[in-house]
Amino acid sequence: MSLLSTVHIFDSTLRDGAQGEGISFSVQDKLHIVKALDELGVAFIEAGNPGSNPKDLEFFREVKKIKLKTSHLVAFGSTRRKGIAAKDDSNLASLLGADTEYVCIFGKTWDFHVTEILRAKLKENLAMIQDTIEFLVSMQRTVIYDAEHFFDAYRDNPEYAMATLKAAVTGGASALILCDTNGGSLPDEVRKITELVVEECKTPVGIHCHNDTGMAVASSLLAVKGGATQIQGTLLGFGERTGNANLSTIIANLELKMNIPCLPAGKVENLTIIARRIAEIANVTVESGMPYVGFNAFAHKAGMHIDGVNKNPRAYEHVSPTAVGNERTFLMSEVAGRSMIIDRLKIFDPSITKESPVAALIIARLKELEHEGYQFEGAEGSFELLIRKNMGKYAPFFDLHYYKIIGEQPIEGMPSNSFAQIKIAVEGQVAITAGEGAGPVHALDCALRSALEQFYPAVSEIRLTDFKVRVLDSSKATAAKVRVLIESTDGEDEWTTVGVSRDLIEASWIALVDSFEYKLSLDAEKEGM
Amino acid sequence: MSLLSTVHIFDSTLRDGAQGEGISFSVQDKLHIVKALDELGVAFIEAGNPGSNPKDLEFFREVKKIKLKTSHLVAFGSTRRKGIAAKDDSNLASLLGADTEYVCIFGKTWDFHVTEILRAKLKENLAMIQDTIEFLVSMQRTVIYDAEHFFDAYRDNPEYAMATLKAAVTGGASALILCDTNGGSLPDEVRKITELVVEECKTPVGIHCHNDTGMAVASSLLAVKGGATQIQGTLLGFGERTGNANLSTIIANLELKMNIPCLPAGKVENLTIIARRIAEIANVTVESGMPYVGFNAFAHKAGMHIDGVNKNPRAYEHVSPTAVGNERTFLMSEVAGRSMIIDRLKIFDPSITKESPVAALIIARLKELEHEGYQFEGAEGSFELLIRKNMGKYAPFFDLHYYKIIGEQPIEGMPSNSFAQIKIAVEGQVAITAGEGAGPVHALDCALRSALEQFYPAVSEIRLTDFKVRVLDSSKATAAKVRVLIESTDGEDEWTTVGVSRDLIEASWIALVDSFEYKLSLDAEKEGM
Repeated sequence: MSLLSTVHIFDSTLRDGAQGEGISFSVQDKLHIVKALDELGVAFIEAGNPGSNPKDLEFFREVKKIKLKTSHLVAFGSTRRKGIAAKDDSNLASLLGADTEYVCIFGKTWDFHVTEILRAKLKENLAMIQDTIEFLVSMQRTVIYDAEHFFDAYRDNPEYAMATLKAAVTGGASALILCDTNGGSLPDEVRKITELVVEECKTPVGIHCHNDTGMAVASSLLAVKGGATQIQGTLLGFGERTGNANLSTIIANLELKMNIPCLPAGKVENLTIIARRIAEIANVTVESGMPYVGFNAFAHKAGMHIDGVNKNPRAYEHVSPTAVGNERTFLMSEVAGRSMIIDRLKIFDPSITKESPVAALIIARLKELEHEGYQFEGAEGSFELLIRKNMGKYAPFFDLHYYKIIGEQPIEGMPSNSFAQIKIAVEGQVAITAGEGAGPVHALDCALRSALEQFYPAVSEIRLTDFKVRVLDSSKATAAKVRVLIESTDGEDEWTTVGVSRDLIEASWIALVDSFEYKLSLDAEKEGM
Repeated sequence: MSLLSTVHIFDSTLRDGAQGEGISFSVQDKLHIVKALDELGVAFIEAGNPGSNPKDLEFFREVKKIKLKTSHLVAFGSTRRKGIAAKDDSNLASLLGADTEYVCIFGKTWDFHVTEILRAKLKENLAMIQDTIEFLVSMQRTVIYDAEHFFDAYRDNPEYAMATLKAAVTGGASALILCDTNGGSLPDEVRKITELVVEECKTPVGIHCHNDTGMAVASSLLAVKGGATQIQGTLLGFGERTGNANLSTIIANLELKMNIPCLPAGKVENLTIIARRIAEIANVTVESGMPYVGFNAFAHKAGMHIDGVNKNPRAYEHVSPTAVGNERTFLMSEVAGRSMIIDRLKIFDPSITKESPVAALIIARLKELEHEGYQFEGAEGSFELLIRKNMGKYAPFFDLHYYKIIGEQPIEGMPSNSFAQIKIAVEGQVAITAGEGAGPVHALDCALRSALEQFYPAVSEIRLTDFKVRVLDSSKATAAKVRVLIESTDGEDEWTTVGVSRDLIEASWIALVDSFEYKLSLDAEKEGM
């Protein structure tokens, strides 16, 4: 089998990534992630050890049913235990049970770790490395060897660190991965030490960094400059403490900035969508400022930058957002220019110009709303509705007759202390519903949903994924104005809406109604097409 | 004036940081940030231009009243406009109005930007740079020169890029800052080009990176290896697109990993607390995985890592968390900063030691509350009440029988849409009052005040000066937990209190009651003295 790229991407989202806080994958999640990574085209997908728990056992059974197009599945384990033969080690036996062509084995490199943590003799550790790999090779496995704490080890005792690598080579390892397990090494040091290893060993060398100094990406890429041909990390940087090297950033840098292919041709354009899909599976939000794949990676806010990008994108963009499947966005702010708003209106009606009366109308309305405390930056859903409303492309989906909120304290023996009642009408038909919740907004959300679902079943697809409150003039204390942002999804699209009021409930109501109406407008439009 | 460090930290949170999505500072926020950065001891604090908007004008008026211990305030502007003399440029006039010793001026370096974006002649741009700096120097300003797009410029036309720097030197610039404005340069390239500039210019050189390739920290530090002596960035990495270079990471790397001092001695230990304070002011959460200062930066989850760290922290920690004022945590089994709490208890009772039962009690209660989402950093009022309650130095000032909140929409012809009714008792005497307000919390505040004032006239002296809401688990949307912070004053003292609940009204109620009780406790103590 030949690998297509000159640098191999080794993703450990399912193994090292699962050490991140709040990350926990079901078997189904893991299978979805394997499919997504294969679609992206990484060389290796590491996925734990079937012996470690029943979930992993089930995973390895199920994953065999997936036919991978590009990626190779890798099972992960450690060197054999002290004092027993490799063939008698139950962990290695279960590793073989994973039935993968590739296995990744980690072993101790740092003398201090061998003696103080593992509490083994230095020589014994060398034998453990060599034996383990020899045994796995004899069982027809291709072994990737992870040299734990390599850089710390090399600084303290370079001879011993190199001896562990040589034991791995003698055992038959197909690649030697230098791990910066504690994440404390600096990029130029990583490069220099990688160069020394590459010079001394014939076996291909790889790099595995953690982000404790905020430089895992740089260290990985400088290791490549030092001769490394495999990079281990996690697609979104998930991992213990500060996370592992972020592979989405590394892939884009390799392909687009360094001209080193690491994915099958054309695949880097799927980077953003795959990154976001994996975040969705892991139930986390992609950091908005994540390089290349974040929602803001190509977002411009300063008026001068927006003008510049409109003249020539190269003015303020180092690569084209489409190269990674992302989009340029202009954040709405006091400084954002009129021309940008016109560009947005043109999407709805290409004939619109600066001189169109509707443009003047919308700009005036926007200013009014911004003065009231609205901010449409990051509230594209509400912005689009605003445009629709002013362009005659909108009819209200329901009329509110009233809502009432009741909150009480104390309430003995009840989990909720907030109640909402609502009356709405759709084309003359009335619905009166109620809801209860942890707080007044939650109660109102429940009541409105159950009223709207009677007319629009699609409302049940809407899931609110984020809720933010910003107090605008906080010195007015409890009478202060608040801005509420609500992020929603229906599993396919994602949108954010905004509401402003001195009453938090009213502000939330405005954002909530916008969210539901945005979804219904979108669906109506799709049907119309 | 002598600067104490060998690398100068230049923080632009208030200027470039404000270009980040969702970042918007009030004048008060800005003043608090200036104080925090000065306490940390950065060399420079950049803060915009008083001419750009009324808010910045007010800021520069107010900031003069703050006596800075270490930092220097820097006003920011661009080179003069085309075709006019520097002395006639209104932007430069307003920059002088900031009345700061230091100003930072940015100018065009990239020939493509000069001709296509600025639409000026190449020669004219050189004159603009030189004139502007000359003029400001003649007005007794020390000028830091930001060479925008330096690295892109140097790649395309090194002669012209160097000519712009020479114009700045001729004009009298005190430092030349190489800006990677589009964030697309790679660290080794940044180092090499910085070296070339340092070699060619006598003037001190600095670096200003953006994080578009995920390597702003590495590029900044490699520029230092190339001879740069100033680093521009933002303390938490706030900034347009993917953000600016994260100074908290850079500072820790310089001080702890590279042995290059950049803060006054001992100040790096305040890094975590200052970073979190600035995040709080900006109403954002510090990313939990942020190197050094994030809540998870020293959090261990894997059992093997926890065992290792317990045997010897060096096993899985590259630096000690206390070196940056952070804490080691074990996810799922937390161990908090006990000695710090003891220090606080000693204020109330100097005889308290680690072994006192009351200390154990308070620590246990604190842990419980922190687990629920409380955070007492910045809520000293509530923290003090908590101590009083557990040390027998507190008797409740009133009993709540109930409160009820009613909110209605729409309400014709009435300014308020929220109503509260409350029943309390003080020593058996009952008060039933009502209030109305812009929102439910405001109505409750009014009702509680008018009830309490019947017994404690001093309550009328309490004025709430700030109100902040933080959604804790925003992915739970409208059912999310919220933390409310209320800042209060009686004209003499100032205190902050905190409440946490899934119900915003209840969270506000907790903070409100703490605020009133804090004041009453304080008064009772003063009388007792």
